[in-house]
Amino acid sequence: MPETISTTISPEGSLEILSQHEVNRLRDSSQTGLHEMLRRCTLAVLNSGNPMDDGLALLETYPNFDIELLQQDRGVRLKLTDAPAEAFVDGRMIRGIREHISSVLRDIVYVYNEIQNQSRFDLATGEGTTNAVFHILRKAGTLKPSRDPSLVVCWGGHSISREEYEYTKDVGYHLGLRDLDICTGCGPGAMKGPMKGANVAHAKQRRYPGRYLGVSEPGIIAAEAPNPIVNELVVMPDIEKRLEAFVRLGHGIIVFPGGVGTAEEILYLLGILLHPDNADMEFPVVFTGPASAAEYFQRIDEFLVYTLGESVRELYQIIIDDPTEVARTMRANIDKVTEYRRARQDAFYYNWRLTIARNFQEPFVPTHEAMASLALSRELPKHELAANLRRAFSGIVAGNVKEQGIRAIEAHGPFRLHAEADLMEKLDALLTSFVAQGRMKLAGDYVPCYTLGGAVA
Amino acid sequence: MPETISTTISPEGSLEILSQHEVNRLRDSSQTGLHEMLRRCTLAVLNSGNPMDDGLALLETYPNFDIELLQQDRGVRLKLTDAPAEAFVDGRMIRGIREHISSVLRDIVYVYNEIQNQSRFDLATGEGTTNAVFHILRKAGTLKPSRDPSLVVCWGGHSISREEYEYTKDVGYHLGLRDLDICTGCGPGAMKGPMKGANVAHAKQRRYPGRYLGVSEPGIIAAEAPNPIVNELVVMPDIEKRLEAFVRLGHGIIVFPGGVGTAEEILYLLGILLHPDNADMEFPVVFTGPASAAEYFQRIDEFLVYTLGESVRELYQIIIDDPTEVARTMRANIDKVTEYRRARQDAFYYNWRLTIARNFQEPFVPTHEAMASLALSRELPKHELAANLRRAFSGIVAGNVKEQGIRAIEAHGPFRLHAEADLMEKLDALLTSFVAQGRMKLAGDYVPCYTLGGAVA
Amino acid sequence: MPETISTTISPEGSLEILSQHEVNRLRDSSQTGLHEMLRRCTLAVLNSGNPMDDGLALLETYPNFDIELLQQDRGVRLKLTDAPAEAFVDGRMIRGIREHISSVLRDIVYVYNEIQNQSRFDLATGEGTTNAVFHILRKAGTLKPSRDPSLVVCWGGHSISREEYEYTKDVGYHLGLRDLDICTGCGPGAMKGPMKGANVAHAKQRRYPGRYLGVSEPGIIAAEAPNPIVNELVVMPDIEKRLEAFVRLGHGIIVFPGGVGTAEEILYLLGILLHPDNADMEFPVVFTGPASAAEYFQRIDEFLVYTLGESVRELYQIIIDDPTEVARTMRANIDKVTEYRRARQDAFYYNWRLTIARNFQEPFVPTHEAMASLALSRELPKHELAANLRRAFSGIVAGNVKEQGIRAIEAHGPFRLHAEADLMEKLDALLTSFVAQGRMKLAGDYVPCYTLGGAVA
Amino acid sequence: MPETISTTISPEGSLEILSQHEVNRLRDSSQTGLHEMLRRCTLAVLNSGNPMDDGLALLETYPNFDIELLQQDRGVRLKLTDAPAEAFVDGRMIRGIREHISSVLRDIVYVYNEIQNQSRFDLATGEGTTNAVFHILRKAGTLKPSRDPSLVVCWGGHSISREEYEYTKDVGYHLGLRDLDICTGCGPGAMKGPMKGANVAHAKQRRYPGRYLGVSEPGIIAAEAPNPIVNELVVMPDIEKRLEAFVRLGHGIIVFPGGVGTAEEILYLLGILLHPDNADMEFPVVFTGPASAAEYFQRIDEFLVYTLGESVRELYQIIIDDPTEVARTMRANIDKVTEYRRARQDAFYYNWRLTIARNFQEPFVPTHEAMASLALSRELPKHELAANLRRAFSGIVAGNVKEQGIRAIEAHGPFRLHAEADLMEKLDALLTSFVAQGRMKLAGDYVPCYTLGGAVA
Repeated sequence: MPETISTTISPEGSLEILSQHEVNRLRDSSQTGLHEMLRRCTLAVLNSGNPMDDGLALLETYPNFDIELLQQDRGVRLKLTDAPAEAFVDGRMIRGIREHISSVLRDIVYVYNEIQNQSRFDLATGEGTTNAVFHILRKAGTLKPSRDPSLVVCWGGHSISREEYEYTKDVGYHLGLRDLDICTGCGPGAMKGPMKGANVAHAKQRRYPGRYLGVSEPGIIAAEAPNPIVNELVVMPDIEKRLEAFVRLGHGIIVFPGGVGTAEEILYLLGILLHPDNADMEFPVVFTGPASAAEYFQRIDEFLVYTLGESVRELYQIIIDDPTEVARTMRANIDKVTEYRRARQDAFYYNWRLTIARNFQEPFVPTHEAMASLALSRELPKHELAANLRRAFSGIVAGNVKEQGIRAIEAHGPFRLHAEADLMEKLDALLTSFVAQGRMKLAGDYVPCYTLGGAVA
Repeated sequence: MPETISTTISPEGSLEILSQHEVNRLRDSSQTGLHEMLRRCTLAVLNSGNPMDDGLALLETYPNFDIELLQQDRGVRLKLTDAPAEAFVDGRMIRGIREHISSVLRDIVYVYNEIQNQSRFDLATGEGTTNAVFHILRKAGTLKPSRDPSLVVCWGGHSISREEYEYTKDVGYHLGLRDLDICTGCGPGAMKGPMKGANVAHAKQRRYPGRYLGVSEPGIIAAEAPNPIVNELVVMPDIEKRLEAFVRLGHGIIVFPGGVGTAEEILYLLGILLHPDNADMEFPVVFTGPASAAEYFQRIDEFLVYTLGESVRELYQIIIDDPTEVARTMRANIDKVTEYRRARQDAFYYNWRLTIARNFQEPFVPTHEAMASLALSRELPKHELAANLRRAFSGIVAGNVKEQGIRAIEAHGPFRLHAEADLMEKLDALLTSFVAQGRMKLAGDYVPCYTLGGAVA
Repeated sequence: MPETISTTISPEGSLEILSQHEVNRLRDSSQTGLHEMLRRCTLAVLNSGNPMDDGLALLETYPNFDIELLQQDRGVRLKLTDAPAEAFVDGRMIRGIREHISSVLRDIVYVYNEIQNQSRFDLATGEGTTNAVFHILRKAGTLKPSRDPSLVVCWGGHSISREEYEYTKDVGYHLGLRDLDICTGCGPGAMKGPMKGANVAHAKQRRYPGRYLGVSEPGIIAAEAPNPIVNELVVMPDIEKRLEAFVRLGHGIIVFPGGVGTAEEILYLLGILLHPDNADMEFPVVFTGPASAAEYFQRIDEFLVYTLGESVRELYQIIIDDPTEVARTMRANIDKVTEYRRARQDAFYYNWRLTIARNFQEPFVPTHEAMASLALSRELPKHELAANLRRAFSGIVAGNVKEQGIRAIEAHGPFRLHAEADLMEKLDALLTSFVAQGRMKLAGDYVPCYTLGGAVA
Repeated sequence: MPETISTTISPEGSLEILSQHEVNRLRDSSQTGLHEMLRRCTLAVLNSGNPMDDGLALLETYPNFDIELLQQDRGVRLKLTDAPAEAFVDGRMIRGIREHISSVLRDIVYVYNEIQNQSRFDLATGEGTTNAVFHILRKAGTLKPSRDPSLVVCWGGHSISREEYEYTKDVGYHLGLRDLDICTGCGPGAMKGPMKGANVAHAKQRRYPGRYLGVSEPGIIAAEAPNPIVNELVVMPDIEKRLEAFVRLGHGIIVFPGGVGTAEEILYLLGILLHPDNADMEFPVVFTGPASAAEYFQRIDEFLVYTLGESVRELYQIIIDDPTEVARTMRANIDKVTEYRRARQDAFYYNWRLTIARNFQEPFVPTHEAMASLALSRELPKHELAANLRRAFSGIVAGNVKEQGIRAIEAHGPFRLHAEADLMEKLDALLTSFVAQGRMKLAGDYVPCYTLGGAVA
């Protein structure tokens, strides 16, 4: 059994000054419903230096790990039992990990109390949801009014090839040389590479400290623990709010090769940008990878044109095997974003002006029924089709890696998706190419968690 | 008519990052009920460099002054119409005044929304009230976790003699030399002198910037506008919460000569410290003034001993005509406060441990009826008598200087207070001595706003 | 006898990291020739909170005061014996005074070693002298490359009337409101008022900390000890280098009423600005005072026009009784200085481009012989006449207040000045008006230290 | 031919505020004797992102590269002609490289003027030399009085195996986790690895920015250009002053495997620590490497014991294949250094107390004659033998990699070393083992630049 440490620590940052009432609520929440979620997420963070990224295995490795909140007049303290010894140096917890634990605590328990348990935000409306996302991010200190637009969101797979990983580092390096910061989903692979590259470039440019923002979600943090470079961590309550955080925070988005998760993100993004209200919005999007990834993006591109029409191509640019060009393009276009917002007196730190249709905001729970009833047809309005495709991909991700999804598949067999015949074919081809390229799961042969059928009767 | 300026400004500090929803609420609130309060308080702040401290006269001098909130994607903007030109330099508002306006806006409108309009805080309970006070102060950035105890609250009259004013400056100077900061009620006189003295001493000791915290209240800010040295301003919703803020924030309290308001504060403070739960609390209190004020404090001392018993003397120290000794005593005792809190792991920035009985927290509205029914007898438990005397003094202050109180007196004649005969006599002697010393009002002969009768039948 | 304290302190700032060799040199120097100068200047600084400004009296009051340098591996320490107790708070020296002592030590002993004892600077040439002035100021940390032009030099008498003092404060206040900093000769009167006013304004504008630069000289520091607001102190080796420091550091100059010393400064400044090389230089100069000072400036103005010609009026502006207008004028003209330097890529922090003729740089020692042989005639080139008049005034200042000058007058009777008849008359009128206005000395009836005769045969 | 850029840049840091005289001297120096040295060193720095580390090849790659100093009133500017394009991003020089160029300019030209051209420092004495080293380091801003001891000097080869390189990174990582900073000779290999590891650890511990100090020398900077992590660069004038800088700045030293250069450093260090004056000095020294390097250190250890006696082993500790243990040992011992210096009031930033015998300070020029006449006998006092062995190794390094040394070997054949027979044998064995382990040169088969003969007749 691996070495463990039991100790008590103080949290950091916004949890420093709490009222006794808040401490009580924190403690109560953590003792009841949220305790298990808090325990899992904290364990993931404590393990962040470690290559193991299998949440279930992790829980089994540290079966006695626990976290408890202690109340003191001076504030809250965290009692950790049997925590992984690697998070400590000579008995003192590594400061970055302590910050991440504080972030997890803040976002899971505190935000839970403020956002979900209160009637302050009407999560049934678009405005209320956008507002809630704003409050979570502000609480996390993520909105920095004095900083010029510089945040590049990087998407892509967490288990990519060495070549692709090096490529993401290279892109990050060239972004960093141009004083751009990085935001990712906070795990390994394409979520770590750009930060690592940017970190070296920031050191060369004496940008201390650059921003390395990780935006996670409770269902995914165990599989994609914050890599050690992340120096700001936010845990959004669900997939959809996490995606909304990405597009409202980021000043531009780069997509590296990935699997279904990446496809989900692409559909989400383009579905939103296709909304007529967003027609004149400056929002730079670049798809990029090494030469070997050219085919990957060609497939994606074809599928997008097929489903969303030729005009979708105006929303992104594909640049193959040229990190410098990617960085230059991004820098130039983010300068345009700056002008655009300045001209309209928009905030730099949160894109209020972006319209997100309701069907991109509503949490989608991928039950067999929900998956089966998704309408997938080119006769739908484009952004609606995009929304449903996004949901379909989201369900497949859940079936692949999330605990709940995996159990549902075990119990009821693969999800059944229905689409019109031609679309079904294209979709099948795309997914099959992902499998062929080894982009579908972490280890072993991939057994699809879905089957494709004809259109819903 | 004095010169005015109309312009639009951005607020500072915690109002920088607002959600659109918050901006709307701010705007709505300011357009309806709160608008007049906001207008008056803002005008008081804009006038803060000016000696005029008569709120009603001020409103008549600037009849067209108005403030309006404008919503922009990037945040809120304040539109000012016909504002006093003295708040500006070559068309740009003085930065300190801009900060004070932001503080007023934050505390009045925003806190109004959060504290009073929501069910988050149960203001009918002691815990809820203390919690609300905490939240207002935290929102204002007043709670500074990394700062060692150094905050001396200074109380005393706002219209004292030149000699007494110079003395308060001298005390402030010697406090400042010992790295102590100042908190007062934020007007002129004994509320300005200590800040002014400390400011010079802090410059000599290179303490940049020292803290000059003003804690005000909407009913009083017009008469006691923040003096220009105040660099943190908080507007508490009522008298009782303002008093609670003083005793939970301050690490020691100095009382200079003053009138009924000062007597109210003394009764409040000692009433609390007499509570058995606070028996072992380190809480330094010093009464001080120049030689000419010796009699004043002798009178107070006698009245306190008479009403609250001999043991009350253990709670304070009287030091006459020795600013250095006052400062040394305060420094030494605040060092004990530091040890006390460290030993108990109490917060340095908010005295949670101090017990405040409910009758010191409940807002007291000094109607004729309420005043007449105050029980004033030495047979009451001491802290109850202290609470009622505090209320009696509070009512007299209202009758003297607050708009509502003055109108009530005009309509119904003086307040009638009832007490047992001997106590009545002592009280009369005390109040008469205040009148004789010219401590009862701002200008002209003083016509008492109260009469003293026998005990309630 | 006043209370004294003996203790050991560490110096601040640039004396923090010294080599052992430097410590030795410091100690050696301070033990021999420089010791007495160091002792006097240090005592003046230690006394800076005190109104007494008579150097000789001060030395008599603290006859046993002494300063000694101790060598330690970790750096130098200062041992003080029988120092005035007022410089300490509860046994710890006030930080600002400690900084001033470090500045005195740095400038007197260290600069003595580097500038005068070495052949690095050829003080016999203009370039070498300007270079030495630059090095002293850089060593003192006075040259701040990142700061925009904002330094207003204020000249004027150290023993002015209360009304004039209040006026200088008022001007300082309005300068401070416009984000301008103050540089003076560092004593009381017109050298303290502007700093005091600016300090209040800087607090209002939240300019923390503003610059309050005092430029002194060993012969004058005892009479004009740094006032407590001074937060940067430089001690230049002689009068002429002090004057050069003023005009190369300052971005504009304001002259308040004063005596012969002020007249000396005016002649110095205008003599330089009259140099053809400086013809297009942006260099704002304002003469100002309250209404009662109007006559004073009229006299000065007439004398300047008479001696230096009508065109001299283009070099300055006289503004009477209007502090706001003074500040606005200064702000607007300093903005022009900024543009001027930017256009020529000149440094903001040191006016290299200003030409200073050699006769304004050479130290003038006012012996009876030197004074008697000064050529004072309108037939001389203007800047030469200005230089000689400057020297004549300088000699009178020495005869009035400097130890050496006073002793020379005691031994040999008053200085004898020779000038052509008409000039003699005007000069006499000017000096007589100074006496009549009580601007000639500190206390008692003024006995002139000079007589005026005809032109040198 | 590679891409180049011609441009003009401003220097950074201490070159910001220069007198016109200093600018002239800089320009003059750079135009004459120093120009070629400045050109080579600058080119090395510009190339620092590039793997090529052959100085001569570099000069051939950029034959037209040149650097020129331009004088402006506002300061100095650097004109670069045909500089490697890789040092720029979209036309702007990378900030870190700009800083390094400023450091090179400061140290080579400026220090040349101050140290070598003036009589300020008597370099013929130990005290004068130590003083000069101090002044160069202070000028470079390397001495930081407020920082606790934390600087670990890492020595070792610049062309080590991948396994050894990873090991140095690992050690650096564990040092960084313990808040220790890194100082090396600033090239690749063992000089880069520890910085790289520490940089990651510092990010985890939020130590922004950590110190990565590179100490170089003109003859070596082309071969060992500052790696991109170096954020402080000092170029010492010669080998011996560079070594003195290491031992006076560092609070502990770690030696990784290397070649003759590393052996030179070990002999230098132990020779000094053997001096009786340094007997009780706290000075932690650790030799470490992966398991594969165990034999290497065994050889060194044997040779040291043979030449310097058994007691030499008390001066260092050998730790094989345990980075955590190395870091823990270093941390614990540096805490002892802190105590040691505090107890003696020694400076933290410069080890004045360390005695360095004159024969370790005098520059050794390895001519054939000088090498041949080195006395190498165990009959010599130990620290004298250490000094001569150090010189012998230094000569071999020069013959291997320095331009002058290589040319001397080409002209006159290998250096001839004389030693007593047994010592000769041991020395031969040691050097042969270096060759066998591939530690003797960069590429190709190694042809020894020396031969070993009997003792000098």
